Amino acid sequence: MKVEIINTGTELLLGNVVNTHTKIFGQELFPLGLRINRQVTVPDGAAIRDAIIEAIDRCDILLVTGGLGPTTDDITREVTAELLAMPLVENEEVLQSIKDRCARRGFEFQRRMGRQAMVPKGAQILPNPFGTAPGLYFPRYDTPCLSTPHIFLLPGPPRELRPMFDAHVMPILRAITGQSPDIQCRSYCCVGLGESLVEERIGLRLSTIPNLEVGYCARPNEVDFRLIGKAELLESLDAEVREALGDALVCTGTGKLEDMVVGLLRDRKESVVTAESCTGGLLAHRLTNVPGSSEVFPQGWVTYANAAKIALLGIDPLTLDAVGAVSAEVAGAMAENARSLAGADYGLATTGIAGPGGGSDEKPVGTVFLALAIRGKATVVWRECFPTDRETFKQVATQAVLNRLRLELIHR
Amino acid sequence: MKVEIINTGTELLLGNVVNTHTKIFGQELFPLGLRINRQVTVPDGAAIRDAIIEAIDRCDILLVTGGLGPTTDDITREVTAELLAMPLVENEEVLQSIKDRCARRGFEFQRRMGRQAMVPKGAQILPNPFGTAPGLYFPRYDTPCLSTPHIFLLPGPPRELRPMFDAHVMPILRAITGQSPDIQCRSYCCVGLGESLVEERIGLRLSTIPNLEVGYCARPNEVDFRLIGKAELLESLDAEVREALGDALVCTGTGKLEDMVVGLLRDRKESVVTAESCTGGLLAHRLTNVPGSSEVFPQGWVTYANAAKIALLGIDPLTLDAVGAVSAEVAGAMAENARSLAGADYGLATTGIAGPGGGSDEKPVGTVFLALAIRGKATVVWRECFPTDRETFKQVATQAVLNRLRLELIHR
Repeated sequence: MKVEIINTGTELLLGNVVNTHTKIFGQELFPLGLRINRQVTVPDGAAIRDAIIEAIDRCDILLVTGGLGPTTDDITREVTAELLAMPLVENEEVLQSIKDRCARRGFEFQRRMGRQAMVPKGAQILPNPFGTAPGLYFPRYDTPCLSTPHIFLLPGPPRELRPMFDAHVMPILRAITGQSPDIQCRSYCCVGLGESLVEERIGLRLSTIPNLEVGYCARPNEVDFRLIGKAELLESLDAEVREALGDALVCTGTGKLEDMVVGLLRDRKESVVTAESCTGGLLAHRLTNVPGSSEVFPQGWVTYANAAKIALLGIDPLTLDAVGAVSAEVAGAMAENARSLAGADYGLATTGIAGPGGGSDEKPVGTVFLALAIRGKATVVWRECFPTDRETFKQVATQAVLNRLRLELIHR
Repeated sequence: MKVEIINTGTELLLGNVVNTHTKIFGQELFPLGLRINRQVTVPDGAAIRDAIIEAIDRCDILLVTGGLGPTTDDITREVTAELLAMPLVENEEVLQSIKDRCARRGFEFQRRMGRQAMVPKGAQILPNPFGTAPGLYFPRYDTPCLSTPHIFLLPGPPRELRPMFDAHVMPILRAITGQSPDIQCRSYCCVGLGESLVEERIGLRLSTIPNLEVGYCARPNEVDFRLIGKAELLESLDAEVREALGDALVCTGTGKLEDMVVGLLRDRKESVVTAESCTGGLLAHRLTNVPGSSEVFPQGWVTYANAAKIALLGIDPLTLDAVGAVSAEVAGAMAENARSLAGADYGLATTGIAGPGGGSDEKPVGTVFLALAIRGKATVVWRECFPTDRETFKQVATQAVLNRLRLELIHR
């Protein structure tokens, strides 16, 4: 089956926004045995019509994103209905859900929002709990005179698209494709091993196996090692891969380091607190992104100024004067004092120079001291240097300290 | 002039890699008066040929990325030469530079690498200091019988593409487009106004003006209102747009709400502290993403557990018992106590139900109480409901409370 994607949105072609939809679709369609044959981006407006006309004749499944909103440049719904000769009918339920959403959020209902409740006759509504415009599914139409593919019209914003895709599009695609094929993709997420070391440890050997596709995807301080092949082949290699990756393997699939850490702490009924300087709240933010984190994370401090380190965490002003805030001594004391103040099992601390300013010869931008305090054990303090942009620095520093806690938890 | 982009590469369609080329091209071409009319991604192999044939008839400038490498699925160079009826000729200089590169990096020269030294007769070589395959430029060909666009064949890896684009493609494009045109793009970032209200207040009226393009891009609790037109037209409309958007206008260009807030605080030499429950550190993280934020943000608390609210922020346990942590009383006290403990000018607080669990009929998932404490003024507390996923909830709640502080700062 041929699959085509049309992404609409002037902002994508102006370069204001990176297109992440193709990544989502590509990854999700693969296990169904579907590969994307073509992806097209067109600006809002008339070009949407041309792109749909072209694709309709060429593919079996067409996924269109964007252009379902309330403003005048959103014409995907109307154009598709016109091409398929389906009249648009106001749908009471959708209209009511848009009004309810406005009421819930304290907005006044605007008449033009009603456009989003117009549904082409014959199309199926895909509910959108995270936005006003529902998605639409047009089943395949196949007669000797006219043939159209399965068409899905989906919202552009990823926070609306992703849940709708998972909850409503995937079940339809599974039904269309029938039995799921036996080709699978398995992904091993590693922290603390570079891409080339992953290749050296296991990738090179596996790349000689016939009918096995080996791939890598690197992110800041994280690598996904990817295998594509028959289910039984992947299963037979699993133990060897895990052995080769060792402690660096955080999880398989789409899990994140913070999910693992919160899960391990919940299993042990233990708790962690954070004392952040240079990471400025990101460590707490990552932990609290995990549902259920309130069971293991009671509190955190962001002590950005020296005065805050002294007042809130009891750091000795003499130490700050003597060795500076970016030091092993201060990192260790932050983690220990945070842990004991909260009566928690673990305390994590970060203090460093995120940049762009503030570096010196001895402590250049990117320098960071990280610490892990452990109930009943000596505090671990270490130094790293991540010379990069401010936001990546914060990401990588929190990655390093969360990974150290993970290693402590799995080896205890 | 019509511009089309063809990105080749199976990995882009598998979803392993996000396509960042369009963002680069879109941003660089705009100041030359060029807009991307269409962007297509096709897998390696035969589909490249189809995509080039289609595009050649439709555009004036064609940029193709990928498919210039040594392996058998890299056919962009051969297909283009064939379509333009240009014989391929081995180029001694390119061949030598490939051999030199191999020697420098300690690889053995492989015969198939020589393919990359085959240059279509009539094409111009674009040197590639960061890889083996050079880029190629085919000047426009325009006779009554045959017309082809300006064609650029460029390497796929961003680390090779970007330098080649800047050093060799941009000068040719500048020569092609002549004087830089006076078409500009102005973007107004609004918070606290939905897309349809922006359209009602100003968009509809402006959409009747000839030669002016009006567009919208919505993000969580944020809308970019975009105008594209001649510089003097945009300048003449600026006051009207600002008047219509009023307080909802945060900034123009690519700034963020937190940049504005930190900037306003720095101008006034004032400070802010944060007391977060449901946003779990994101508020502090956003503020500390701004370089220079240490001047205005001394500290923050993440008081996730009730015990932490009592111990660190002095919240009255009786209040917590009586009205619960998710309440106006607790939000207000968190903001006030944080502000006064730190001796700061402003205190921000968040307490709510991020979900997925924890909601009730009276306080459903998404409910949040937000507070702004102000030195010498009454504390502002208000209730919102953002029923969405956990991470978007955190984003939108921090957006609301940062925006309230911004409004206080601009009206003081």
